[in-house]
Parts: sequence; C-alpha cells; structure tokens
Amino acid sequence: MLSNFLLLHLDYNIHNMAGNTFGTLYKITTFGESHGKGIGVVIDGCPSGLKLDVDHIFSELQRRKPGQSKIVTQRHENEEFEILSGVFEGITTGTPLAIFIRNQDQRSKDYSHIAKKFRPSHADYTYTQKYGLRDYRGGGRSSARETAARVIAGAIAKQVLKTLNVKVNAFVSQVGTITLPEEITIDLNKTEDNIVRCPHPQTAEKMIQLISQIKKKGDTIGGKISCVVENCPVGIGAPVFDKLHAELGKAMLSINAVKGFEIGSGFSAVQMLGSEHNDAFESIDGKVSTKTNYSGGIQGGISNGMNINFNVAFKPVATIIPAQDSVDEAGNKTTVEGRGRHDPCVVPRAVPIVESMAALVILDHIMINKSTKLDDLKS
Amino acid sequence: MLSNFLLLHLDYNIHNMAGNTFGTLYKITTFGESHGKGIGVVIDGCPSGLKLDVDHIFSELQRRKPGQSKIVTQRHENEEFEILSGVFEGITTGTPLAIFIRNQDQRSKDYSHIAKKFRPSHADYTYTQKYGLRDYRGGGRSSARETAARVIAGAIAKQVLKTLNVKVNAFVSQVGTITLPEEITIDLNKTEDNIVRCPHPQTAEKMIQLISQIKKKGDTIGGKISCVVENCPVGIGAPVFDKLHAELGKAMLSINAVKGFEIGSGFSAVQMLGSEHNDAFESIDGKVSTKTNYSGGIQGGISNGMNINFNVAFKPVATIIPAQDSVDEAGNKTTVEGRGRHDPCVVPRAVPIVESMAALVILDHIMINKSTKLDDLKS
Amino acid sequence: MLSNFLLLHLDYNIHNMAGNTFGTLYKITTFGESHGKGIGVVIDGCPSGLKLDVDHIFSELQRRKPGQSKIVTQRHENEEFEILSGVFEGITTGTPLAIFIRNQDQRSKDYSHIAKKFRPSHADYTYTQKYGLRDYRGGGRSSARETAARVIAGAIAKQVLKTLNVKVNAFVSQVGTITLPEEITIDLNKTEDNIVRCPHPQTAEKMIQLISQIKKKGDTIGGKISCVVENCPVGIGAPVFDKLHAELGKAMLSINAVKGFEIGSGFSAVQMLGSEHNDAFESIDGKVSTKTNYSGGIQGGISNGMNINFNVAFKPVATIIPAQDSVDEAGNKTTVEGRGRHDPCVVPRAVPIVESMAALVILDHIMINKSTKLDDLKS
Amino acid sequence: MLSNFLLLHLDYNIHNMAGNTFGTLYKITTFGESHGKGIGVVIDGCPSGLKLDVDHIFSELQRRKPGQSKIVTQRHENEEFEILSGVFEGITTGTPLAIFIRNQDQRSKDYSHIAKKFRPSHADYTYTQKYGLRDYRGGGRSSARETAARVIAGAIAKQVLKTLNVKVNAFVSQVGTITLPEEITIDLNKTEDNIVRCPHPQTAEKMIQLISQIKKKGDTIGGKISCVVENCPVGIGAPVFDKLHAELGKAMLSINAVKGFEIGSGFSAVQMLGSEHNDAFESIDGKVSTKTNYSGGIQGGISNGMNINFNVAFKPVATIIPAQDSVDEAGNKTTVEGRGRHDPCVVPRAVPIVESMAALVILDHIMINKSTKLDDLKS
Repeated sequence: MLSNFLLLHLDYNIHNMAGNTFGTLYKITTFGESHGKGIGVVIDGCPSGLKLDVDHIFSELQRRKPGQSKIVTQRHENEEFEILSGVFEGITTGTPLAIFIRNQDQRSKDYSHIAKKFRPSHADYTYTQKYGLRDYRGGGRSSARETAARVIAGAIAKQVLKTLNVKVNAFVSQVGTITLPEEITIDLNKTEDNIVRCPHPQTAEKMIQLISQIKKKGDTIGGKISCVVENCPVGIGAPVFDKLHAELGKAMLSINAVKGFEIGSGFSAVQMLGSEHNDAFESIDGKVSTKTNYSGGIQGGISNGMNINFNVAFKPVATIIPAQDSVDEAGNKTTVEGRGRHDPCVVPRAVPIVESMAALVILDHIMINKSTKLDDLKS
Repeated sequence: MLSNFLLLHLDYNIHNMAGNTFGTLYKITTFGESHGKGIGVVIDGCPSGLKLDVDHIFSELQRRKPGQSKIVTQRHENEEFEILSGVFEGITTGTPLAIFIRNQDQRSKDYSHIAKKFRPSHADYTYTQKYGLRDYRGGGRSSARETAARVIAGAIAKQVLKTLNVKVNAFVSQVGTITLPEEITIDLNKTEDNIVRCPHPQTAEKMIQLISQIKKKGDTIGGKISCVVENCPVGIGAPVFDKLHAELGKAMLSINAVKGFEIGSGFSAVQMLGSEHNDAFESIDGKVSTKTNYSGGIQGGISNGMNINFNVAFKPVATIIPAQDSVDEAGNKTTVEGRGRHDPCVVPRAVPIVESMAALVILDHIMINKSTKLDDLKS
Repeated sequence: MLSNFLLLHLDYNIHNMAGNTFGTLYKITTFGESHGKGIGVVIDGCPSGLKLDVDHIFSELQRRKPGQSKIVTQRHENEEFEILSGVFEGITTGTPLAIFIRNQDQRSKDYSHIAKKFRPSHADYTYTQKYGLRDYRGGGRSSARETAARVIAGAIAKQVLKTLNVKVNAFVSQVGTITLPEEITIDLNKTEDNIVRCPHPQTAEKMIQLISQIKKKGDTIGGKISCVVENCPVGIGAPVFDKLHAELGKAMLSINAVKGFEIGSGFSAVQMLGSEHNDAFESIDGKVSTKTNYSGGIQGGISNGMNINFNVAFKPVATIIPAQDSVDEAGNKTTVEGRGRHDPCVVPRAVPIVESMAALVILDHIMINKSTKLDDLKS
Repeated sequence: MLSNFLLLHLDYNIHNMAGNTFGTLYKITTFGESHGKGIGVVIDGCPSGLKLDVDHIFSELQRRKPGQSKIVTQRHENEEFEILSGVFEGITTGTPLAIFIRNQDQRSKDYSHIAKKFRPSHADYTYTQKYGLRDYRGGGRSSARETAARVIAGAIAKQVLKTLNVKVNAFVSQVGTITLPEEITIDLNKTEDNIVRCPHPQTAEKMIQLISQIKKKGDTIGGKISCVVENCPVGIGAPVFDKLHAELGKAMLSINAVKGFEIGSGFSAVQMLGSEHNDAFESIDGKVSTKTNYSGGIQGGISNGMNINFNVAFKPVATIIPAQDSVDEAGNKTTVEGRGRHDPCVVPRAVPIVESMAALVILDHIMINKSTKLDDLKS
C-alpha cells in the first residue's frame, strides 16, 4: 500500500536534491538517511598530518546522542563509525576522509498512521511538493540524524583548530522563559556538568524541571543556544557577500529547527544609540582591543580578535502527542497524533551541532585567508 | 604623507579580496569603490527575453539614494547608470549584463583626521589587519556605496519575479523602541508614503521625530526591517545546508550594519510550546494552507506557499559626531571625532537593499528548482 | 623504517588535497585508496525516480576490472559494491547516492624496493613534493583504482541518459602503430566482442598480438580511444569558458595516463582549408544536419545534434620490468626495477572510464541546460 | 524585418547563458559583445600590492589586435581600455579589478545577407537552437572579440607570475603542412620578430607566404600553437579531477577554433613504448630533474619543475569567401557567401590568447597550492 503511494508520486514528480555540500576549502558532503543503511560524511580538504583523535570524535557524538538523559528522546541510535578513507597509521593523509555510521536497525517501523498525512510544521508537506515523494519512515534527509555527520566533521575541524589554539564552545542560554541571570560570569567549563548543558547550575536545574514538565504533557518547548569562539585569528572573513557573520548565520540557520541568528548585540542593537553601541578601542601593553564587544568579534565582516559570540533561536520540536488538525495527501481534513519518542526540547542535544557548524566556518575561513597573501606566493 | 602610510603597509602585508560574487544561477559580481571611478555589477545568468524596465531600476536606486529626505545623509551621489552589455533593443539577450555607475566626484576629500586612526565599530581596523591597507577615503569595498550595485541587480531580479507574480516588499518595523502596534494590519502599499518607509502613518511620524532628534545630537539609532515575499512557488529551497531561510539569512547578514536575522516566529519561538507554534494545516476549496504561519513560509528549508516573512536587525550607524576613544595605527591612544554627513539611522535607505537581496535569493532558488526535475530532462 | 620516512615528511610539509569533486548539477566526489579500506563515490544531484540497474553497474565494473583477460594486469581486485544511501526499494530517491567498494586485501605488500625511490613517470616525485608524503603502497589517490568510483558514477549517468535515448560508446582505435583501416564503417556493437575492445576483428587481433609481445618483454605500449555520443540533444554546452568540448577535454585529461584530446577533426584540422573543413548544412525532410562532421557535433561550444566524436591519447604505462635510472629521496642516483603485475597497455580497460567521464559531462550539461529557460520559470 | 525575426524567437525560446567565469582564486568574469557598448572583464582575487604595468597590458592587446599585419583581418577595433576599479595610485588594492574596452563603432552594419541563414561551422545554428535568438551582427558572445578581455586578465596574471619568475611563452609551430624543423632549438625571444609569430625565421617566411596565398583565394587554413611555461613551481595541480594538464586543456579548448590539446608527448605517446617514454630521473648538483621531458612537466596531474609544454590545434577560420551550401531558419536550402574582412589563419593573433589562458591556470593553481599547507595555518 505504501509503495503504491510512493510510486504514484514518482511517476509524476521526480526531482533530485542537492545542497549536501558545505564549505569551500574544508568542504564536507553528507549523505544517508535515518532509516537506510546509515549516514556518512566525506571531508575534502582536511589538512594532512593531523593525528586523528578518534575518542574525541566519539565523545562529541555522545553529546548529540539520543537517550543520553531523561530530558531527551529515548530513541536508540548507533554511534559507532567506520573511517573508510583518508587516514594512514592514525594520521590524516590529506586525501578525502570518508566516515560512515551504520544504522543499527533498518527495519521500517509502522508509519501507517502518518504515511499519508502531513504533520504540522514538519517537512512532510514541502518535501512531497518538491520531490514528489517523502521518506515516511523518518524524514529522509530532513531527519535530525543527518546532524551526526556534521558533528563528526565538526569534531575533526575542532581538532585542527585546537592546534591553532582556537576554541569553540556553545551552551544553552534559554529554555522557554528561563534565562541566564545577566549578572553572572559564564564559566564555559561547566556546560557539560548537567544534562541541559547550561553552565549556570541553578538555571540549569530550572530548565531541567521545565523540560520535564513539558515532556509529561507530551508537548515541546523552544530554547536558545549561545556560542563563543575564543582566539579566532584577526582578519578572517571578507568585506562584501562572504562576511564572517553571514557565513556563521547561514551555518546556524541550516540546523533543523533554527528560527533566528544574531551576532554580538544582535536584535538589541535596534534600540541602541551609536554612542552606546560603538566599541571604543583601547591599547593595553601594545595589544589593541575594544572596551566593549557589541560587534561580537566581527567588524565589516572580518574578525577583529575579540571573542566571537552569537545566539541561535530554536523553535519547539514539531512532534507532539496531542491531536492536531491537518490534511492528508488527497487534501481531506484529518488529525495527526504523535507517537513514540521525541525530544521535548532540542537545545541540550543541539549544543555540539552549533559548535560543529561554527568550527567548520571558522576553519574554512582561516584556510581561505591563508590563500590570499601575495607574499606567500613569493615564499 | 598619506601615500607613505599606504605604501608602508603594501610592502609588508599584501592580500587579495574575494567574496564579491553572490548566487548560483542568477549570479552577481559587484566591483568598484566609493571614491574610485565608480561602482558596478555583472549579472551572469539573467534569462534572455526580459524587456528591461530601466525606469524601474532608476526608481529603485532613488529609494536607496543619499539626500532623499531630511532624515538621511545629505551626501550627494550620482545614480546615473550605464548598461555596458547584455541588452539589445531593450531586451535582455541572456549574455552577462554589466551595469556601471560612474562616481561624480573622485577628488579625495581631506581624510587626514582619520587616515591613521581606527574609527570605533567601523571596518578600518579589521580591513587594515586583513589587507595591510585601507582605503581611508571612504571605506573601499566596505562602503555602503557598494549596495547600489546590489539594488540594480535586485531590481532586475524583481522584474523577472514580477513575470512570475512573485512580490517582495520590505518596510521599517522598528526604530529604537518605537514599534508597529501589534493589532494593525500592515498595508504594504503604504510603505513609500513617508520618508521613513513605515507603512503605518502614525508610527512613521514618531520614528521620523525620533530620528530627527537623534540627528541633532550627532548620534545614531538602530532599527528593524521586516520583509514579506508573496506568491513564492511551493518547493523552492533544499533540505540540508542550503535551506531557503539559511540562504536568506546569509543574504541579509551580508548587508552592512545587520546584526540579526529571524524567520517567521524567530526569537519568539524560544518561549513557545510546540502546541502553540505548530502551523495546523487546513484545506480550503482544495487548496492547502496553514492556519497560522509561525514557520514564516518555509518548512524543512523548503517554501510551503505561505508568505515568507522575516526580520532584519540593524545596528546604529558607527559614524557619530561626539569624540570617541580609539587608537592610531601605532597603537597609541587617541580620540576620533565624526565629521560631515552621515545617516542618523540606516533603515529608511536599507529597505530597497533588503528587498533586493531577498529577490536575488528567491529568483536564484526558483531557477535552481527548475533544474532538478527528471521529467524536464525528458521533455 | 618506512614510518620514519613518512613522519619525517609529515613534520615539515603537511598539505591537504582537494579536487575530488567533478560536475555541477550531477556532481560526484570520489574517495578512498587502493590499499586502504576501499574506494567510493558520493553522487549529489542524481534525479529521483530512476529504477537503478545494479547488474548494469556491476557489468560496467567488469569491463574495467583487472584480470579480465590475458592482455591486462593479473592483479586481483574486489568489485563488489555496497549502496550506502540514496536508494529505496530499488529506486533513487534524489538524496545523495553513496557507493562503496571494500578492498579485499588491505595487507601492505612489500614495497621496500620502491618506498624511497622515485619511479620514472609515476606521480611519486610530484606527490612527495606537493604533500610531503606519499602512499608508497600503491599510489594513494593517484592509483588507477580510483577510476572504479568513476565507472560506478558513470554507469548511473548512462542509465539516466538511456531514458533520454542518449548513447555513449567508446572503443580502442589505435595501439602503437596499429590503427583502424580508414575505409571501414565502425560497428559500435562489436567493441565487446574481443578483449582489446576494438570493433574491427582483424585489427583487434593485431593489437592483441602486439600487446602480448610487449608484455613478454616487460615493456608497455600506448594507445588511443575514440568515443561517440549519439542522440545528444541540440543546444547543450555554453559559448565562452564552459564550451562542451572544453568540459569533455578536461574530463578526459583527468584520466590517468591521458596525454591528448581532440574533438572532431582535431589535430588534422591544422592542415585543412576552411573550404574543406566547413560542415555544409543540408535539410532532409525538414531536419537540419551537416554533410560532413569535422566539427565533431559541437559548434561554438554548443552541441548541434550530430554525433559527438572525440579521440583520447594514452601514454604507455609507466611501470615496466627493465631497470631504469632514477634517484632516491636523498637525491642519490639509483635504479628502479618493476615487479609484479602491471598492464602492458592501458586502453582495453580504459574504454569504460572514457565512456563514464563522457556520460558525466553530457548528463550534467543536459541538466544545466534545463535550468536556463525563462519559459520554464513560468510553467 | 530583422527585429521581427528576433522577437519571434524571443517569444518562444528564451534562455539565459552562463559559463562566463573562469578560475577559482584568480577568478575572471568576462562580459560584452562585439557590436554592443564594448567588452570587459572583472578580476576577483588579484593580489593587492601589484604595481600595474598598463603599457604591458596595452602591448599584449596589440599582439591580439586585428589589422596588425597583412596576414590578419583588416577590421578595425578599439583597444583603449579603462580601468573602472581596483587600482589606487597605480597599485592594485585587492578589490575586484574591472576593465572595459569601449567599442569604437556601434552602428550595426548590413548583416541582412546572413541574418536568416546559418553560416557553416559557425555558432549561428547552435546559438539559435540554444538561446532562441542570435546576435546576427557579429556573433554575440561567440565573437572572437571576447578574447580581448581574456588577454587583459592574462596580462595581469603574467605580471603577477613575473614577480615569481614564471614565464609563459607561446609561438606558432605549424600552419597547414609547414612545420618547424625538428632539429632546431627554439629561441623564444624570436617569436615577435615576425608577423606570423614563429620563432624560426625561415619557417616563418614560408608560413607567411602560404597564408598570403590562401588569403588571396578567400580561403582559410588551420595552424598549431605551442606553449612553454618556464620556472613553474613544483607541486601545483591536483591528483584526481583537477590535474594541472586537465585544467590547461579546458582553458585551451575554451578558445574559439581550438580542436585539440596535447601535453608533453601528446598523441605521439600512442606509438611509444614505456621504456622509451619514461622520463628517467637524474640528480645534478643535488637538483633533481629528468633526462627527457615526455611528461611535459606534469606527472600525476602535478607539476614536476621541468618546463611545461603543450600544443594546441586550431581549425581553419569558418568565414570564407566562396559560396557554401546552407539552410535558412525556415529549413530551406540556400547558399552563404563570405564578405568583408576575416582572418585567413587564426594562429598569429591567437598566440597571446594561448599565453593568457595558460597564465590564468598557472597563477590560479599557484594560489590554490598556497592555501593547502597546514603549517601555514600555524604561522
């Protein structure tokens, strides 16, 4: 029955999909589906000579993993990966790195309750309209499972950045109306101390309670992640279309469920005066810095050496238990009810994804910047 | 004296700049400086057969033009453009369109007061660090003058979109703390009725007064622009990295002074429940739509046929009259004072730029989507 | 010992490698090494809805396979592939297709006789200079094993082209001085009738004898492959840099051991008069064609509907048994002797590779051409 | 009448054209038509700090100029160019360089004799099929006039290469059956000593006589250009799809009238044994070189430090005076006669074009190679 539905659409509306590549010099291509053989990534442009820390990649995947705590989905996923190419005796050779995670269980579950209905605020409807088919088993390429491939590529990017002393750290800064107190100083080392990944213990506890309550109701809640890049070299980015924060913005907005991005002062800049917002320069021991950092470490699209900081807004997960109005593929009114295991709030598991996408952008632009010196041509 | 400064840096720190191209199939490359011969744009991929409306391009440039009202900079710029290629008997031929605006007055003004100092929150410092030189005459490629080239390319994109019945309209929705009342219905036809480009007359009046006050003080103020795309075809965009709102986000964040971008519910989604935020489907006369539009017309990175709407946050212009703390190129403390003519608030003139960048993204993705049908291959 | 050599270079000269992606809309990325886990390919942009013919892919790989006859290398390679993503119930879904061939035997052979020497006319020397290391086990990415990934991607491209009635056929037209008689009409159906893949039986027999003789001496010989594309749609390609034959030329020259490419009349055009070379038009039953086809089916970079035909020159394989003068990594004179199993002539196995690369180019440009119609935008 | 023809097609068959960009880091986009306002080029990625030699650009254009001698077309073209952006006080700033050559005479000549006919072996037919229109005034983007933009961009690339001591020199090595004697040593400094650009005076004289005879008959003749790149750094290029000779091949095949490309031994390799063809290494004073250079300076797609040399085959120019069979746009038989001024042989004027395209490829890959060192990331 289901395959009839599928073939019906295949006959009339067959398309391809692209947009699976990200980056210019450190360039990744992801592939695979949540309910196929598995998912993977090819990294073209990773420098040779990196002693790959496989344990680090694995631990990064653990931060994204379903079932890691009581406030995330209890779904099980395999996180064991195989490195298919690009490493010899533990060291990257410069050739494309291909890494694959095999799905544990490829049996199709019973999806008949949603196969012909469009779930509100999921990609079902748009996917069907664009491609003439949808993978009713789990969202196909729209599945959050794809982000595991990003985390692998991001983990390796972080390892390269570590050799340059660049650090990328994200944390949960808001869930629903629960925000970090403005007066506290954030200790980025405390993010992993709790299951919600908020570096302020008291706030974290409130967030966990809120998410637990929401979960019991079968509902979901939005959240915000903040990210800090420390020790980013001065001068990366570009002045016109490829501004560094424009690239970061695209990277973040490409993560499932993201609705907004702001750099430095962000939307609060709308209400500020220039005399407040301008970051006055100072010189301390011959080192130039700015007294404030409303610019978020980027001016004119180019990094200025201050911390790069930005916020990312996530909507509440679209899968909820209560019945919702919808339509089926024939355009008839129907209702959709959620089943099974979903995340009540996406932000705890999205922290390593935000870090990964940031690391990809920063490393790529460091590499791009190294290609632009005429003096290097002469050396 | 100034050229010594320039040459000094040229000797040690010579780079190139890229990132002057935007788009995939409707692809633009901008060039030129505010104080050189002029600025221009090459459009590669504009469909042939378009009867070019030159008056429309000119009127779009007028909306961006300095000196258009009392609340914008009184600087004078030439807006007369010459079409160098790609049009025959008034119709686009499909070959690259090159369009050039010659600068009226290329004499260098006296910039000695800032030539060796870094203006706070301008691109001076980062530009110098990246390229080893800066165009002290007016910001070089960081100058807002570059956006005139975007407006030309965007105007032509709008003309193509018009043949598809797609409309792109932006307006000023906030200046400082002055916002549009929530209860009003916005009439997009009223945007051009006032000099601040806010479609609600009473709110517009308050904004104009605020900007006028700020201007007298030599200070500046931030603002917000909202944009609506009507009749966008269903199914454009892509599910992974090239999500439609990610592309729109990059486009907006590439505009000078933009600090934030949000699609649909945006940052307000952080506080919402899934049961509130989900856009229930309905079917009216066989046409599928959603009861609400928190998704902002895009689900899973792909347009769903509802209006696409997004907000863009602009910081206050960095040039202000009062003295500010800064450093010079030798790292010594100094102060910088503003001079001359600057915009007290950037949003009135930025409305056509937001529309242009949106039109470029939407048209490009409509074109990309047309290349992905296997059935088309057979036709 | 060997790893010391490797690490020595890693410390001083660590690079990355790119250039592993080919194509614009039908875009492939290959990965893997001859002596690692295996080799693979990701195809981004394959149209959905194609009923994948797995047997056809396998049979194409058999045409490239070592050990297939007495005149090719007797090395054994695994050709079993696994489809990792992009196919559901035997039909392409439009998502990235990832396909992997696992290497049978990953044990490093004894390469000590060449590990520190540069084999003449191999990539050893340039690879070491560029990347600071080389994969002495079998050439790394320079290995001909990489072309299996191209054949897989090309086989699928051919399957898409088949639905459009486009045929791509190559054959061996010269080995050493043995050429096809000028007077014969080539029957493309006879190419697979013999082990050298020459469609003229008598000539094939001579070629086989020559290659067998050369093989006994431990020497190698060059050859030429000709390719014909039938039923290519009129109008694909582009008039300036992306001329269709320029894209075909790059594709062919990217195959290992290729030294030359010519389209239509090719190098013989140098000696011709315009009055001889021009292809006069004729009209038969309202269908326009040309009386001759010195243009090779492409005029001004754009296909004209006639058969596209081109020749590709292959040098003799660089691995030979007799001792050759060389240097080691320290710059000392030495000699290199060949060992083991190599191809005495590369062209019999290169026929499917030429076809694959041609199919990739033709399909990509058919897809690109479908994206450029303004009328399509309106439909 | 003519515009009706044009509009007729515009209504039914409107396309765009792309493929006007070449290069990755030193990236050029050309625009303009032979009978429009003019032609131009935007160079994105030219390093800053180059003291631009405007006289050199002009002298390069003179080498390509029509009317330069008795054996080329006597058509007049303007070669005066204007630098629109990217240069300040004579030095490149790193911003996009835009350069424009205004056409002297934009009046449409009388083209009624060919406007509705397809000239054999021109791009008329394919252009019309692809774009639904053609620029009957002079070929539009297919016109050789476009190559002036390439020569400008190539001249600047040569100036950058000169600072790296890399030299690019091409010369005419064959016209019809007249070839350079094999025994001579070519003195690249003598190429400009005669109007055919052959560095061997006696051979040059024969070529000039042959071309003069052909010209009298209103016919045309093919030719061959050889190119040598001296002092190319070792290690540029890539091992898989972006092999250095594959990039050179595409560049050359993108030049109008080119039918073939060969690197090093080229098509002669087909007849050679591996024991003949292999380039044995030798070490002289610690410097590694090869005794022969059949590889043409490139092994495995990567430069090896020897001279890069390649040949390019040009067909006879398609415009001839005698009547030729053809069809008109309605498919009726007709004849076409040539008129006016055309080149009897294209190679004398194509020498600087070959050099320019080679310089673009070599510089681009030098720049790409500089971006791939992990050590550079750490510096």
